[in-house]
Amino acid sequence: MKHVVIVGGGFAGLNAAKVLGKSEKVKVTLIDKRNYHLFQPLLYQVAMAALSPADIAAPIRSLLSEYKYVSVIQDEVKNIDLNNKIVITQELQFNYDYLIMALGTQHAYFGNEKWEEFAPGLKTIEQATEIRRRVLVAFEKAEIENDPEKKKEYLTFVIVGGGPTGVELAGAIGEMTRFTLSRDFKNIDPKLARIILIEAAPRILTMYSEKLSSKAVRDLESLGVQVWTSSKVTNVNEKGVEIGEEIIRSKTVLWAAGVKPSKLNASLGVELGPMGRVLVQKDLTIKVYPNAYVLGDQALFINKYEKPLPALAPVALQQGKFAAKNILLEIEGKPKGEFEYNDKGQAATIGRSKAIVETSKFKFSGFFAWLTWIAIHIYYLTGFRNRVFVIFSWAWSHLTFGRGARLIVPKKWQFYDE
Amino acid sequence: MKHVVIVGGGFAGLNAAKVLGKSEKVKVTLIDKRNYHLFQPLLYQVAMAALSPADIAAPIRSLLSEYKYVSVIQDEVKNIDLNNKIVITQELQFNYDYLIMALGTQHAYFGNEKWEEFAPGLKTIEQATEIRRRVLVAFEKAEIENDPEKKKEYLTFVIVGGGPTGVELAGAIGEMTRFTLSRDFKNIDPKLARIILIEAAPRILTMYSEKLSSKAVRDLESLGVQVWTSSKVTNVNEKGVEIGEEIIRSKTVLWAAGVKPSKLNASLGVELGPMGRVLVQKDLTIKVYPNAYVLGDQALFINKYEKPLPALAPVALQQGKFAAKNILLEIEGKPKGEFEYNDKGQAATIGRSKAIVETSKFKFSGFFAWLTWIAIHIYYLTGFRNRVFVIFSWAWSHLTFGRGARLIVPKKWQFYDE
Repeated sequence: MKHVVIVGGGFAGLNAAKVLGKSEKVKVTLIDKRNYHLFQPLLYQVAMAALSPADIAAPIRSLLSEYKYVSVIQDEVKNIDLNNKIVITQELQFNYDYLIMALGTQHAYFGNEKWEEFAPGLKTIEQATEIRRRVLVAFEKAEIENDPEKKKEYLTFVIVGGGPTGVELAGAIGEMTRFTLSRDFKNIDPKLARIILIEAAPRILTMYSEKLSSKAVRDLESLGVQVWTSSKVTNVNEKGVEIGEEIIRSKTVLWAAGVKPSKLNASLGVELGPMGRVLVQKDLTIKVYPNAYVLGDQALFINKYEKPLPALAPVALQQGKFAAKNILLEIEGKPKGEFEYNDKGQAATIGRSKAIVETSKFKFSGFFAWLTWIAIHIYYLTGFRNRVFVIFSWAWSHLTFGRGARLIVPKKWQFYDE
Repeated sequence: MKHVVIVGGGFAGLNAAKVLGKSEKVKVTLIDKRNYHLFQPLLYQVAMAALSPADIAAPIRSLLSEYKYVSVIQDEVKNIDLNNKIVITQELQFNYDYLIMALGTQHAYFGNEKWEEFAPGLKTIEQATEIRRRVLVAFEKAEIENDPEKKKEYLTFVIVGGGPTGVELAGAIGEMTRFTLSRDFKNIDPKLARIILIEAAPRILTMYSEKLSSKAVRDLESLGVQVWTSSKVTNVNEKGVEIGEEIIRSKTVLWAAGVKPSKLNASLGVELGPMGRVLVQKDLTIKVYPNAYVLGDQALFINKYEKPLPALAPVALQQGKFAAKNILLEIEGKPKGEFEYNDKGQAATIGRSKAIVETSKFKFSGFFAWLTWIAIHIYYLTGFRNRVFVIFSWAWSHLTFGRGARLIVPKKWQFYDE
């Protein structure tokens, strides 16, 4: 029986494991440092107190429990020896016949790692609850603050990065301040909170058409978010954000401006693309190592139009299934295929009931786009036992304008003048 | 025949002249340094290219031509000798039996007069066309600018002062960038223009209820304007605006933050209130000088609730009529009355089809408030021969989202890097 080691339990790794698990010809070991698969596209909803962490995190073990030859190991991979086909973790080591790597990315500060303290990113559950804490605490602080200057700083929210995550975060803060919280406070009017979305490029959501990007700006504005394009952040500190010569004082800066790959990539000794992603061939394997697949955000796959595939869940999901099938084909002695991304389009949501949807055939926005967005996300939540709770939470907060998960978890970070 | 000298052809002076003109017992001299009466509440529409100067300016001479004993002098008053009852102008001097002073106010920079160069106010036709020029030229400059930093500075509009003028200016720029101009440019998207309304107080439109003030914030946001409250401007220069430690780079800063009275006030030798307004008695005359009336924005009238009357057109208008009637009563040997302001409420418009209206009985906002605002302003335009043109201009720009008066007049001011 051939042994397939999968590193990473995200969309790519999980879906590869599911396909391989159906075969009797391979045994599979999936290694992840977390015990859960995270439905990352909804992570911002945890950060914005609309969902609980458990709503979007499911134990990998239970997601794969039906497959007899699949075992799940919670451990951190320390090194991968491609030549000798060994995966080395903190505790153990695994020999493999086939390797599937899908380690994803972390958020990146482009050489300004000290900004992280003041501007957390949104890649993990811990970061999401930390953002939730900072945002909710800022309102509590503002409520009891007498100095109008400081009050204003607590009520200023800067989101750096105008990609889908930044837009969804900014929209959610807009909705929260303009609707949910507007009656909860006595000494502050949350509707007067300043929310600024900063993007270095000349427009936000560059992966969408100009028209939809412009629509998104208008939708954000209607939620009180001001979009600053062509604005490159040059400093972030305890006082706020600097954009060249411009300065904004803010106690809550959120980072959605960029990602970097796993630090393991550099140690592999293989060709890396821009941003350090592992360059893969048409069949998703690494050159010279036909048994080693790299998938999802960790990989750089150049499609037939010479464009890199975007770092999106559907890409990872399709690549996971494709790699698994290719491995099975090879074991059966059949010719392997070449990966082709079936682009079903993309969607981003802005606040409570608006979204933009773009496919090769259609571009649309507004309430119907939002329903489409909801449908897509519920579809992809398949396999989550808590899907019904997510739907219920959504329906509830939509009807009541409420946010059910306004818990402030114990703090790991303090505002600088506490 | 008694001689009444009226200084100032605004709402107060003009209406006093009309009442006195109907009497055969007085002759009237109205002195103004301009030859026209300005319908100031619509001045921002000239600044924002929706109306032409002539739509809201009518020659005082023709407005008063029907009155046999009223003469109009275009001249600047240099001094007033209350003890000897003499008004001294640049060219002439006039002895009076009764004096009506209604000189209005100018915009003020609270001791930072050097800011005026970078942040013009909106009190005169010249200022309105200058603002119009700066705003329209900023878009033209942005269109041909290659440096994204500078492009952004041209597309940043800062309005200082969250009173009705600031709100109306900001709303109009919002409407202009989000609707009118959005398709006219190739290299810029006017919808990405940053519009920031800065107010030192904790909320805008403090003369309105908190609810309507909050509604106005939301309406401004829907037009892309971000409202910064509790924000005191500490510097304005060729680079932009500083608010304490915050810095915003902008090529177009507009000042709507405060007014100061005529410099004549200090030379009168009478009691002045806060902000230098002339303190008047219950009958609108100055203490010790029962023949000298001061009206409108120039006067500080404390009503029975111990609150100063606001600097609004209806106050000036009612005071003009009242003072004229009181003078006629006195000449006829009848007892004089005390002024009481009949407060019919106030209204401010935000963009194209929204407004807020507040009276002692009603508070409302939205489209119906906007219709009310239109009706009020058309009603008060009575006597303007060009009223029909104003209505036509409004209807036209409302239907077409257009702005008919997008003329850039010859420049008196240059952007600093030209």
